Amino acid sequence: MDKSKLNQLLVQMSLEEKIGQLTQFTPQYLGRENGELTGVLGDFEVEQVYLDSLGSILNADSFEDMVEIQREHLKHDRLKIPLVFMRDIIHGYRTIFPIPLGLGATFDPDLIEEMAHQSGSEAASEGVQVTFSPMADLSRDARWGRVMEGTGEDSFLNAKMSASMVKGYQGQPGILAHDPSRIAACVKHYAGYGAVLAGRDYSTVDFSRITLYQDYLPAFQSAIEAGAKLVMPAFTLFEGVPATASKYLLKEVLREYLKFDGATISDWGSVDKFITMHIAGNQQRASELALNAGLDMDMMSGAFVRGLKQAVAEGAVDVADIDTAVYRMLELKNDLGLFEDPYRQFGENHATNEVFGEKIRANARKVATKSIVLLKNKNVLPLDTKIRIGVTGPLGDSQKILGAWSSLGKHSDAVSLATGLQKQFDHVELIPLPTSSDPADYANIDVIVAGLGEREDDTGESACKTNIELPEDQVVLLKRLQHTGKTIVGVIFAGRPLVLTNVVGLLDAILYAWFPGTEGGNALADLISGVSLPQGRLPMTFPRASGQVPIYYNTPRNGSPANDQNPSKFTSRYVDCENAPLFSFGYGLGYGDVHYGTPTIDNKVLTDNRDIKIEIALNNTSMYGSIETIQCYAGSSITEIVRPEVELKHWQQVEIPAGSTKKITFTISSDDLAYVHSDLNREADKGAFIVRIGSSATNYQELSLVYR
Amino acid sequence: MDKSKLNQLLVQMSLEEKIGQLTQFTPQYLGRENGELTGVLGDFEVEQVYLDSLGSILNADSFEDMVEIQREHLKHDRLKIPLVFMRDIIHGYRTIFPIPLGLGATFDPDLIEEMAHQSGSEAASEGVQVTFSPMADLSRDARWGRVMEGTGEDSFLNAKMSASMVKGYQGQPGILAHDPSRIAACVKHYAGYGAVLAGRDYSTVDFSRITLYQDYLPAFQSAIEAGAKLVMPAFTLFEGVPATASKYLLKEVLREYLKFDGATISDWGSVDKFITMHIAGNQQRASELALNAGLDMDMMSGAFVRGLKQAVAEGAVDVADIDTAVYRMLELKNDLGLFEDPYRQFGENHATNEVFGEKIRANARKVATKSIVLLKNKNVLPLDTKIRIGVTGPLGDSQKILGAWSSLGKHSDAVSLATGLQKQFDHVELIPLPTSSDPADYANIDVIVAGLGEREDDTGESACKTNIELPEDQVVLLKRLQHTGKTIVGVIFAGRPLVLTNVVGLLDAILYAWFPGTEGGNALADLISGVSLPQGRLPMTFPRASGQVPIYYNTPRNGSPANDQNPSKFTSRYVDCENAPLFSFGYGLGYGDVHYGTPTIDNKVLTDNRDIKIEIALNNTSMYGSIETIQCYAGSSITEIVRPEVELKHWQQVEIPAGSTKKITFTISSDDLAYVHSDLNREADKGAFIVRIGSSATNYQELSLVYR
Repeated sequence: MDKSKLNQLLVQMSLEEKIGQLTQFTPQYLGRENGELTGVLGDFEVEQVYLDSLGSILNADSFEDMVEIQREHLKHDRLKIPLVFMRDIIHGYRTIFPIPLGLGATFDPDLIEEMAHQSGSEAASEGVQVTFSPMADLSRDARWGRVMEGTGEDSFLNAKMSASMVKGYQGQPGILAHDPSRIAACVKHYAGYGAVLAGRDYSTVDFSRITLYQDYLPAFQSAIEAGAKLVMPAFTLFEGVPATASKYLLKEVLREYLKFDGATISDWGSVDKFITMHIAGNQQRASELALNAGLDMDMMSGAFVRGLKQAVAEGAVDVADIDTAVYRMLELKNDLGLFEDPYRQFGENHATNEVFGEKIRANARKVATKSIVLLKNKNVLPLDTKIRIGVTGPLGDSQKILGAWSSLGKHSDAVSLATGLQKQFDHVELIPLPTSSDPADYANIDVIVAGLGEREDDTGESACKTNIELPEDQVVLLKRLQHTGKTIVGVIFAGRPLVLTNVVGLLDAILYAWFPGTEGGNALADLISGVSLPQGRLPMTFPRASGQVPIYYNTPRNGSPANDQNPSKFTSRYVDCENAPLFSFGYGLGYGDVHYGTPTIDNKVLTDNRDIKIEIALNNTSMYGSIETIQCYAGSSITEIVRPEVELKHWQQVEIPAGSTKKITFTISSDDLAYVHSDLNREADKGAFIVRIGSSATNYQELSLVYR
Repeated sequence: MDKSKLNQLLVQMSLEEKIGQLTQFTPQYLGRENGELTGVLGDFEVEQVYLDSLGSILNADSFEDMVEIQREHLKHDRLKIPLVFMRDIIHGYRTIFPIPLGLGATFDPDLIEEMAHQSGSEAASEGVQVTFSPMADLSRDARWGRVMEGTGEDSFLNAKMSASMVKGYQGQPGILAHDPSRIAACVKHYAGYGAVLAGRDYSTVDFSRITLYQDYLPAFQSAIEAGAKLVMPAFTLFEGVPATASKYLLKEVLREYLKFDGATISDWGSVDKFITMHIAGNQQRASELALNAGLDMDMMSGAFVRGLKQAVAEGAVDVADIDTAVYRMLELKNDLGLFEDPYRQFGENHATNEVFGEKIRANARKVATKSIVLLKNKNVLPLDTKIRIGVTGPLGDSQKILGAWSSLGKHSDAVSLATGLQKQFDHVELIPLPTSSDPADYANIDVIVAGLGEREDDTGESACKTNIELPEDQVVLLKRLQHTGKTIVGVIFAGRPLVLTNVVGLLDAILYAWFPGTEGGNALADLISGVSLPQGRLPMTFPRASGQVPIYYNTPRNGSPANDQNPSKFTSRYVDCENAPLFSFGYGLGYGDVHYGTPTIDNKVLTDNRDIKIEIALNNTSMYGSIETIQCYAGSSITEIVRPEVELKHWQQVEIPAGSTKKITFTISSDDLAYVHSDLNREADKGAFIVRIGSSATNYQELSLVYR
């Protein structure tokens, strides 16, 4: 539909129809028999007109349901405005990819774009039109269950990944209406959700505007620049106000600073939560706060349909603001091509996109392979496929490795670690728990592979932990296994960085598998056998102790820095734990042994007109190939406000074959030095700066340069 | 000196003399022999004129030293402006009172005022003129070592206590110059130091302006209103800028909002730390940032004497701003009467204030008694003095119970738990570690008293912990003792809330003694014998697990509140720990059994012209007297921003003799409902509100009222 017609449609809408258009419910609120309303909303005393003109449906169960609901809707909606169907496609729809934290670990935005395209395509086949993804929240506290849903602690990495996911879901600008493999992306949770107090979900959040601009906005900014059609405000607070009621966030920052022109949609029941939060006494007041703040669509609270009309009548809400919101919803539907085909080119039949087919499963396997991080390898991995493996541990043969938010993924489809190994290794035996510690019982076994970690259900939304150590019974298990004298490979499944301090010494090799999804066991077997090379890098700092959280590599400098090697009084440290994490951001091993040469530069002086090129040679002296993620961090020597020493600014992934050398080049521009100043403007400070090039945030070579 | 003369003095001063006046060093920087400079500053290449005109001396070791330093100074200072002598008197000078967190537990501002007067008086006798106390920092994270230095997590309690301490040190306005028992108070650390990331000292701090105004400023405001002569900005950041360089904090908030007209002094070396924090490349730039932000005196960095003159020469600093700072220092000295008597009325001899005398020690004992919190009592305490006691545990006979920052207190003077008990009980036996768990070895013992807790050195500045559980070896000890079948009383010495989850069940009674100071053992024996009644109440929430921190009673409401008794998905909770703390803010037992009657009100409607009076009867049905701390919390039902349900607004301490009833009355005014709104103004919302009256933040009766 030509955009000019949207306004023509808008002016024909009654106030009730407009309010209905701004409302989203699940199908059970809309159950019809013989065209009569029978659903939960019956109890709600919501007038029929709102439901007839409803804007959107959340989480319809099947393609058939969606077709049926849309068909019925179009019979009842006076102006024949189609519903838009939305669903959480977080890391796959039917074929489950690794959890987003694992996607972060790939450090491979192109791969993630492809992944998002494929999982969006699967979902589109089943009628889904919008996904609530990417989650662009910065995560610094591993207690928080939703760290699994984001790509970690670094705003730059998150920004690259959120943009990739938007591009993957949506495709190039404008093709959404024409490409049946694309769906619209809603970036969430805007903004700061990850800073919940003490890592407890939905709890209070508080930080300054500078931190908002510097740390929390970039991943939203890049998703918006990539074209994200929707933004979901967070459940949490900014400056005491829920994001969903924050004029500052939804108008000043989102519309003016971030230049977002799409639609905003609340999280589930967020508008109702204003009542639980006691900033509104009833739904009318809640609807007024949300609409006036800049919320366009109300998900699952019913506050708009119950309160907005009266709020208008009382002059608390301006119809012009409602019109703005309605126009955005119409625009979204138009961008999706729904006015032309409310079933998105599928007609009333399934599209031909692949669902749980070979190609997408192969890709899920590849992504999983690239997400898994080799944390330790005492010359153990890869294993010869003729070796005799004993698999044990609570997750050794578990299919519960999809990870939370796995949409329509089925555990019964998941390839367990043991199953994956059995496909590639000649001798794989399951050692049931409780395990023996008698070496005699292991006569037929060369290497033990232990599937460890946390329960899938103990990660994700509202699954936060006070204690993020590997469960004690698994430490006991490993101590028993150690008695056997066998080599032990630990495969750890987790939705967050776990504290591994007590077990690192008990394991000869460690693969950190996150929750790797449907193809997890195959991917792990690929790595363990050496068919694939491990290339995952940590997207979050792994603490040495639970009590170190929040911990992240780019904390601002402090006035009394501590020296772990030579601890002294009156420095910033703990008396019972060193400051350094167990594994730092960016860390991860390969099978190869890659030596970083001395970086060379073409010029020591950076200007706005002249970048600096840094070249470094990487030499793989081993018999295994290696996929290196060479990281480039930078930071100014003297800053206007107190800043981290450096932050990640570039990285490159390069495969370096065994025995070969590759040169790579980074180009440093003044933009790499820019950060948010006191006045909230992002700029670079002239003067000395440093660049660090290395294999993690803590293993690097440093260069001193000048920006003039 | 008449104040008008201060300006006459100021105009005679050279720029160098002014800069010297704004500088504080320890005596070793000023060592003189035969009038020649010999100290550390020799290496510093500081011109003699700065030292001759030095403003202040920190931590002179003795009265004799101070007299000597002052006498020499007055020979060299051209304008004969006396030095002012400052020192950290935190919870006692020679006689050590409980740590400030224990002072908070008394909930007795009058007692704390008296304590501050006495400890200031001791210090004044030895020549100290200014103390860096009170520490008004809000503490919500028990990992932070300095939680011991403040009065806890509640800004209202902190405000009462900080004002009391200022009044205690300084006396009534204007008497500082005339009362040799008074010293000037410097309130610290302005503002927000307690919010250090992950409880690690000196680490980064970040919160919003609303939180600054609502939570962090009140205790500074009340100290300033009580007349505090000095304010010390924190080491930490606000909006990315160290407090010591923050124009916003030191000018806009401190001078305009808080109306402070005294002097600011940096913390130790704070100005130099701008260099470590990389916001200044050298001392000149650091001095410029600090002076321009509003810092008056530079403690121990030397940046002012090394950089300020050149900064003026380059036009980066205005002499008028230096004059303002100098005037404030002269005013402080004048307020202390130093121009009339640079030795503060003592002449060159000691004053007659009592130092470590009977009266102050008796008061230290009383304060300690009132600070100790009875956390559990299974009908065990008090003990008959004829009972046979076995004392054990790592702190059972330790004199290391003074607590950090104990100034000139001596461990050898401290009365240990065992010594205190021996003075009051007929049979007290020491059971050395490791203890037997054989009941036969305890035939001569009726009750075991175990001195538990943490090392004094593991608390206080730069003594932070990732794990705040009671040390594991003490859990093992208690399990062994439990085998004896004896009644076990735990006395826990600590500088912070420790996690006691694993030991509560192993102990029949628990006294939480903080670090009680010189008279600790006597105070504990007073309580254990029943000579005194326990009355301490917790000024900080005691978590159930280390991973619950930061935890505090007045967290803002959230949209998905959890129910510990009936946990459900998608609520704000942990999967491995309930939300409720082990012991809540305000909790503490007495020996009596006090029943709270139903509160009655004179009126349900509050207006600006009419307060509400709430009366409640307390009935002590037991054979022991009880000192109750009846707490009154209030909060509006609907608020402009998201707020805690209630906050502490009043409390009363009442002794209720055995078998008697007392009535107490609270008066609720609209000010009790006021809080900081989005526009940073403090106001009350009209409408419904609730009042809770009870014995802790979680044990109360609730009233519904209306403010019109």
